[in-house]
Amino acid sequence: MNFGLVARVLGNLLLIEGAILAVPLGVSLSFRERSSVFGFLLSMGILGLIGLFLSNIPVKSSRLKTREAMVIVTVGWVVAALFAALPFVLSGSVSSFTDAFFEAVSGLTTTGASAIRNVEALPKGILFWRSLMHWVGGMGILVLTLAILPTLGLVGSQMFKAESPGPSPDRFTPRIAATSKILYAIYGVLTAIILFAVRASGVSWFESFILAFGTVGTGGFGLYNDSLTRHSVNSPLILVLAAAMFLAGVNFSLYYDLIKGRWRHALADVELRLYIIIAAICVLGISLNLYGRTYASFGDTVKHALFQVGSVMTTTGYSTTDFDLWPSFSKGILFTLMFVGASAGSTSGSVKVVRLLIAAKVVKREVAKVLHPQAAQPVVINGRVMPESVVQGVVGFLLLYIGVFGVGSLLISLQGLDMISSMSAVASTLGNIGVGFGSVGPSGSYAVLSPVSKLLLSFFMLLGRLELFTMLAVLSPGFWKE
Amino acid sequence: MNFGLVARVLGNLLLIEGAILAVPLGVSLSFRERSSVFGFLLSMGILGLIGLFLSNIPVKSSRLKTREAMVIVTVGWVVAALFAALPFVLSGSVSSFTDAFFEAVSGLTTTGASAIRNVEALPKGILFWRSLMHWVGGMGILVLTLAILPTLGLVGSQMFKAESPGPSPDRFTPRIAATSKILYAIYGVLTAIILFAVRASGVSWFESFILAFGTVGTGGFGLYNDSLTRHSVNSPLILVLAAAMFLAGVNFSLYYDLIKGRWRHALADVELRLYIIIAAICVLGISLNLYGRTYASFGDTVKHALFQVGSVMTTTGYSTTDFDLWPSFSKGILFTLMFVGASAGSTSGSVKVVRLLIAAKVVKREVAKVLHPQAAQPVVINGRVMPESVVQGVVGFLLLYIGVFGVGSLLISLQGLDMISSMSAVASTLGNIGVGFGSVGPSGSYAVLSPVSKLLLSFFMLLGRLELFTMLAVLSPGFWKE
Repeated sequence: MNFGLVARVLGNLLLIEGAILAVPLGVSLSFRERSSVFGFLLSMGILGLIGLFLSNIPVKSSRLKTREAMVIVTVGWVVAALFAALPFVLSGSVSSFTDAFFEAVSGLTTTGASAIRNVEALPKGILFWRSLMHWVGGMGILVLTLAILPTLGLVGSQMFKAESPGPSPDRFTPRIAATSKILYAIYGVLTAIILFAVRASGVSWFESFILAFGTVGTGGFGLYNDSLTRHSVNSPLILVLAAAMFLAGVNFSLYYDLIKGRWRHALADVELRLYIIIAAICVLGISLNLYGRTYASFGDTVKHALFQVGSVMTTTGYSTTDFDLWPSFSKGILFTLMFVGASAGSTSGSVKVVRLLIAAKVVKREVAKVLHPQAAQPVVINGRVMPESVVQGVVGFLLLYIGVFGVGSLLISLQGLDMISSMSAVASTLGNIGVGFGSVGPSGSYAVLSPVSKLLLSFFMLLGRLELFTMLAVLSPGFWKE
Repeated sequence: MNFGLVARVLGNLLLIEGAILAVPLGVSLSFRERSSVFGFLLSMGILGLIGLFLSNIPVKSSRLKTREAMVIVTVGWVVAALFAALPFVLSGSVSSFTDAFFEAVSGLTTTGASAIRNVEALPKGILFWRSLMHWVGGMGILVLTLAILPTLGLVGSQMFKAESPGPSPDRFTPRIAATSKILYAIYGVLTAIILFAVRASGVSWFESFILAFGTVGTGGFGLYNDSLTRHSVNSPLILVLAAAMFLAGVNFSLYYDLIKGRWRHALADVELRLYIIIAAICVLGISLNLYGRTYASFGDTVKHALFQVGSVMTTTGYSTTDFDLWPSFSKGILFTLMFVGASAGSTSGSVKVVRLLIAAKVVKREVAKVLHPQAAQPVVINGRVMPESVVQGVVGFLLLYIGVFGVGSLLISLQGLDMISSMSAVASTLGNIGVGFGSVGPSGSYAVLSPVSKLLLSFFMLLGRLELFTMLAVLSPGFWKE
């Protein structure tokens, strides 16, 4: 293990993080918030010192191998969250460091679960930093998905239609540089469009930034304790946000196709189609189930259904209504969507539609094999044969996801929460969604949880964001033996 | 499709079922229950007539191919349940045919879920038939597992250590005949041992038969509305039943090993060891979670925990206490066990321990592949390399199981049950367990469900019992096109 190189990269990461803090510092200054100005300045000082120290550690070889990359990714996210928690504590906004760490992990992983009971009392600079973490984290995720994670075989090869199954350690750096520039550009343009659309729907510039960061990063942090329920479901804002969430859940490589004029190609993408079909079926199911029960008109019902489906499926986590009061079929649909997620190559979390499509094809193949044991058909996605190693990776991911969910729910239930609250807290953090049911539902809060539970859920957020394998591999003893 | 052959085999099945009805008829006669005597006689007449008609249909070729075997298995279980429901209706014990069909499916699939609100009012002959169905169904399952189901590659090759991956249609008939005789003998001896042990613990011969059938078949039908809660947890009966359930959840081929003196070989079986380890961990977890909360002494707590873990894990479904009142961690353990089940090659339902072991090894392999993408290790069980096709079958089974559970829970929740009741009703029927949580918990009943829900759950019981693939393949349009 080239620890020098790992330390140097992490040092650079901290320096960048310190530089980013200048943005919320500016917000704090403009609102003349003395405590948060102090908090940001002190945090920047700490980040700068430690970052400079680490980034100047002498390095023998600067060649990045898979093993070092995995350590950097895993440790990098944890360290970034630890330091992102500093402004919360140093500004005096949050008294417990555990709560601040939970909030930072939740922000950077674009989860949006909050352990702060009264969000409305936070200084504007801190609120801005909370949401900016979504935006920064979302950007990090796009590059991660492209570059280092095991889904790479799948997403990477879909992305920009490169024919190589996955880059080797030696040649991935230049390719990342090129593709991540394109991704950043798309991400930036999408953010700007959403920002102006939100602003045009009548909220302040400050709230527009918060909501743009929250949607494009599929995060879900907002300004109020009750998410978006104070806004009328008929306001243009809600429709803009619903559209923004759905757009953020699309594979970003399809936007690249659009820019290049390959719109027919983009619209033929099977994951995009299935994403739309699943969302439409769920909106229809919930609307019919709620019809005549809860809301003033069928139009309102459809809008609430659309927003909640979009919010949970894209793993954003905003809510326009307390869906925990819905009948169990509608709640069940949302709970199921927690295990679906949106598209690979987007900022959304959870399983992703394309993995479920592959799983469905694997199951179909096995049913066919009952009758024809010898005929093994390959799994085809978008007209291309998926290598069996990618299919096995997806299947392993799904089994592990269910396993972590099960064990995690049991551990959280030790806290004494009811079963649905425990299960949805784990599904929601592991899937980077934020909102759940019961105690962690739209009217609840993660503040009720014990520090141990908060740390455990923070671990699930990171595990889900890093798509399980990388983090577990780094945590396995065998990784460090060789 | 050789429909003549299918009809003839089904005809023979009905004749055998008619003959079996002579046993509960004898019980009814000895208790002088006029209505149930009439019900059994009329049912036997109907079964005899239709059975004779079908079994005399002229057959061109009596060569059984895979396709016909699959149709026979699927249709056979449905038809057997349809006719097994007759005595309930014809004796006037159950007024709705849907309820009677639900009860018959539940009996034959060894589920033990009851739609009859007041079981204690049933005639003794009908009660005996209900439990006898468990015993007959359990016997059928052993042969099924061995012979026709897709798990065969796994279980069949473990069983009696045959080296062939699975019999071809042409040669499986003679092998079944030999092995099923051994299985029947083991099943019979185990039943006799349990019967005498239960009788020795102080209950009547009648109840001894009911409980022996209910445990050895891992069914769970009993004599009372509140399962076994009227018996003290300190009575010898409860310990005898707990032991009986655990023994019924062991792979029957291990008993064959024991008879042959290969006890060292039997005790080294990884599935047996994992089965015991999982059970022990769950008993310990529940005991510590309940400690000082609910029961008079720690001894009582451990006994309740042991019994409930055994009951749910072996998919029997008896209860000595209303575990729906337990804290959510203990309930969560039982809920998780609903997706575990006991050993392959036993009468238990659900997923089976060996499948989870294979899944764990698949996941471990994928985590290792993050670092070493080229090194693909085979999955080894009991020192033998599992063929990749078997591993894929197991993985496909697990994904399908989760999928059916999810969709099924949504459909059942349309009835308006809460989420936990809906989920546990589906987990309980799909896993052939019987008992669940909430409305279908130890103090609840499937009687609250609508006829449509009862039919849907009956379908899940059959689907789970036939291990998903066979039934879905037969139900797929492609099956009938060729």
